[in-house]
Amino acid sequence: MRYSQYMLNTVKEVPADAEVLSHQLMIRTGMIKKVAAGIYSYLPFGLRALRKVEQIVREEMNRAGAIEVLMPMVTPAELWQESGRWQQYGKELLRIKDRKQADFCLGPTHEEVITDIVRREIRSYRQLPLNLYQIQTKFRDEIRPRFGLMRGREFIMKDAYSFDLDDAGADESYRKMYQAYRRIFERCGLKFRAVEADSGAIGGSFSHEFMVLAESGEDAIVSCDSCEYAANVEKAELKAAGTAAAPAAQLEKVLTPARRSIEEVAAYLKLDPWQLVKTLVVETDSGEVVAVLLRGDRELNTIKLCNLLDADWVEMASDETVLKATGAPTGFAGPVGLTLRILADLEVEAMSDFVVGANEKDYHYTGANHGRDFQVERFADLRQAVAGDACPRCDGKLESWRGVEVGHVFKLGTKYSESMAAKVLDEQGRERALVMGCYGIGIGRTVAASIEQNHDENGIIWPMPIAPFQVLITLVNPKDEAVCEAGEKLYRDLLEQGIEVLLDDRDERPGSKFKDADLIGIPLRVTVGSRGLKDGNLELQVRRGGERSMVPLAEVASRVAAIVTRELAS
Amino acid sequence: MRYSQYMLNTVKEVPADAEVLSHQLMIRTGMIKKVAAGIYSYLPFGLRALRKVEQIVREEMNRAGAIEVLMPMVTPAELWQESGRWQQYGKELLRIKDRKQADFCLGPTHEEVITDIVRREIRSYRQLPLNLYQIQTKFRDEIRPRFGLMRGREFIMKDAYSFDLDDAGADESYRKMYQAYRRIFERCGLKFRAVEADSGAIGGSFSHEFMVLAESGEDAIVSCDSCEYAANVEKAELKAAGTAAAPAAQLEKVLTPARRSIEEVAAYLKLDPWQLVKTLVVETDSGEVVAVLLRGDRELNTIKLCNLLDADWVEMASDETVLKATGAPTGFAGPVGLTLRILADLEVEAMSDFVVGANEKDYHYTGANHGRDFQVERFADLRQAVAGDACPRCDGKLESWRGVEVGHVFKLGTKYSESMAAKVLDEQGRERALVMGCYGIGIGRTVAASIEQNHDENGIIWPMPIAPFQVLITLVNPKDEAVCEAGEKLYRDLLEQGIEVLLDDRDERPGSKFKDADLIGIPLRVTVGSRGLKDGNLELQVRRGGERSMVPLAEVASRVAAIVTRELAS
Repeated sequence: MRYSQYMLNTVKEVPADAEVLSHQLMIRTGMIKKVAAGIYSYLPFGLRALRKVEQIVREEMNRAGAIEVLMPMVTPAELWQESGRWQQYGKELLRIKDRKQADFCLGPTHEEVITDIVRREIRSYRQLPLNLYQIQTKFRDEIRPRFGLMRGREFIMKDAYSFDLDDAGADESYRKMYQAYRRIFERCGLKFRAVEADSGAIGGSFSHEFMVLAESGEDAIVSCDSCEYAANVEKAELKAAGTAAAPAAQLEKVLTPARRSIEEVAAYLKLDPWQLVKTLVVETDSGEVVAVLLRGDRELNTIKLCNLLDADWVEMASDETVLKATGAPTGFAGPVGLTLRILADLEVEAMSDFVVGANEKDYHYTGANHGRDFQVERFADLRQAVAGDACPRCDGKLESWRGVEVGHVFKLGTKYSESMAAKVLDEQGRERALVMGCYGIGIGRTVAASIEQNHDENGIIWPMPIAPFQVLITLVNPKDEAVCEAGEKLYRDLLEQGIEVLLDDRDERPGSKFKDADLIGIPLRVTVGSRGLKDGNLELQVRRGGERSMVPLAEVASRVAAIVTRELAS
Repeated sequence: MRYSQYMLNTVKEVPADAEVLSHQLMIRTGMIKKVAAGIYSYLPFGLRALRKVEQIVREEMNRAGAIEVLMPMVTPAELWQESGRWQQYGKELLRIKDRKQADFCLGPTHEEVITDIVRREIRSYRQLPLNLYQIQTKFRDEIRPRFGLMRGREFIMKDAYSFDLDDAGADESYRKMYQAYRRIFERCGLKFRAVEADSGAIGGSFSHEFMVLAESGEDAIVSCDSCEYAANVEKAELKAAGTAAAPAAQLEKVLTPARRSIEEVAAYLKLDPWQLVKTLVVETDSGEVVAVLLRGDRELNTIKLCNLLDADWVEMASDETVLKATGAPTGFAGPVGLTLRILADLEVEAMSDFVVGANEKDYHYTGANHGRDFQVERFADLRQAVAGDACPRCDGKLESWRGVEVGHVFKLGTKYSESMAAKVLDEQGRERALVMGCYGIGIGRTVAASIEQNHDENGIIWPMPIAPFQVLITLVNPKDEAVCEAGEKLYRDLLEQGIEVLLDDRDERPGSKFKDADLIGIPLRVTVGSRGLKDGNLELQVRRGGERSMVPLAEVASRVAAIVTRELAS
């Protein structure tokens, strides 16, 4: 493609609503153009990246035995009424009326439509397992669309739905998709983790989120440095830390004047925060007040606590409640002599001779020990995971990351097949509700996440497999005949080898072309200038890392082809 | 693909609303599944055909220098208000409100959105010409959706929009698209004609419709047997037929008792209808009554007459009006002594000594001649074209067909660029409104039209380039080990050569498999049966024509590959 004939206009200014880097860079490189809030047109350069991701997704879905279909965007209310979601779904489900006042909605997901197809097409267990997918445009009327393609209203998604006769089959379908997703994101050239996740409102029995790692990611996750275990920080399981050494110190009440926080008390006592135990006074949605003990440097995981207490939510008790429950102001609560239920994190079980609050203003205890000085009702996994924690599955250690969710695999069970009567006959001729799974990948989101992960201060750094072009040839001065000739020949040679080349033949200042080259981030760059040409060389530069080398004219095409091939294969 | 694991369920019954053959066959072969009126899901077998057409379209659009983009389906009212179509467009434009009560519509076409992109992206004539296209899902809320994919509400369309600095550039862009469209439909393996068309409400200066020829087509067209000329019957131009021979007969009033129609009079006088001239008494929308003379066997083209008279519509005069204007009942009107304006078709100009009505009940004249017996105000092209007519462009003859419109190229001019202020600076630095063209292809419609054109009483006959699979291997008895082994080996060999194969490994009766094979219409069929295998042969059958031959096992793969390659190239 010739840049001069391509609609790729880079811009310096980004609109105020472009808060995240991928959004800014997609606007600046003219990949997308806003049409309305959360609704974009994909311009040529952006669409090429999208299509690359789509193609990888398609190939890997096919390889995993899934079959491509295409469902409509406008779907009739009846199907959603059958599943119950017409009523349950919030305003993200954009409900519309056609000219005859019939009710429809724009499909934000397609469980209903696919279940309807399958119940009409499939009669027997012999037609199973079945996994149907589509790459299709969806609409969710987000109340606050933002971050460009990260949270748009109209967006392209790959959604797949598996149908099995039983749970074991569904688990196998799930496993295949999990593996296909790993291959997809590997082939996209992205660093990612498959994170164990709550299945949320969609209502499944287990699920994984696929997270592209990026500092700007919305989600905090941990992953094992030696096995595949990964989880959202909120969900990461933690192992028991062992048992405590026998108490060595005496319980002693010490003055800690006006020291309330762990940091203040530790500093005052010349200890480290991990040598203290903090006592959190927590109130549940049912009004119960409990004490939770954590190692001083740890954070409470309220989801785990809710699960343990079977509560919908918990919150820190008010100063008034704390005073009433402990007899002391907030900051001095402790388990010794406390009449509340006492729960403690697993880590506390392994501690001895620690510091706790004394339930008295300006006083703490040192030398405290559970079992001896107070009783814990239950030790449980109650804290937030952090880097360095032991992996719950192996002997590895957890690392911590931030991530952008780009894919999600759910085991759905029979939620939709029951409500919509999608049944088949099994080998014994009995009717059974199909066991379903559903599997999504945000195509635009994957492109955006790849930019969040791969960029520097000058612009995008595309991974080779999803780069809109693989090579950029820059004619430093396209009016120089020798430059033009060498550049055009290389352009033709590379195209002939099936390499995707953008030829910057624009009549612009070299400096502005180089700036654009950095910004649009094509992985390989060949600069054709009269200086190098005098010695029979062209400059080859790798966008990632910036490494440059002068390569003899005759060798450039084969060198470039070799790098492209290698990076696509890796 | 293994048939046993593929969701391809043929059915015998078709729903009552499937009136046309392509719709019936698409339902019977499980290509599409109705979700709501005019809204379909594409099942795997159908989607494959669609994708084939899409890919040919994409390749040829790229080859013609067009650049792919993707615009949203949900588009904001503001853009449509700017162009004026928010008000003008009928109820086919499905207007919706989002959760914030902002007005949007589902895009039935994208002139507004693309013009908005281009006015924001393009500043200078140096960025022109530009042709942007997309393959995208559209929605038109048809009042009576029908014929399956022929007239759906949600449908896939390739739409392209060209932008040029001036008319000459726009004409060149139009010419390129015209040629690209010819290549597209040729590559699809379809018989078609590019027909000169009225541009209709979309408002352009000239346009062509691309018609796939099929007996069931909605449009009647004629095309030249030697040049590219083709036109809708209503629009086909006809040449002057020459001048008349000198009158030889006397004008003579003859009795034609109760003979009113041309056929009756001709039979009574022992003449052929072409030896008569019929006199049509026509009333225009402004109330004028005129007489129109046509050769006896010809049909009036009311569009041509309207154009000549500058009328919105014309209709045959009532019996009462005819009586008043001619003095005789309907069936005996003639030009001799008539006081109405007399217009005549060009063909009449070349006639002499003909029969006309005598404006008297039960009487006609023989030996009538214009110029001598009556005066014609104007000879003009006023009749419907028919097969055998002379081509208006060359010495060829016209053939007549019926066709299904699958594509349309328009020269739009500056309608949208003026109303939406899409301007660029020309070489002299003056602002100029872009001259636009727009170019559509119905992807699903093309697939449907190909079925209308290519089928027999047993089912579809796919042209190789758009066939969902190129080869079908039928295992007559998949439980026979030798059959299985030979079939599986051939399957692998063909897949390795990149050939698209469906392996019918289903445990079904052979007769039912052969019926399905005919129905789904894969171009090549290899039947693997134990009888042929005994002699080391497989049966190779061509779906079109049904030709069968026994081919030695070792040669089947290469024979099949050769046919596929040849048919894709032709």
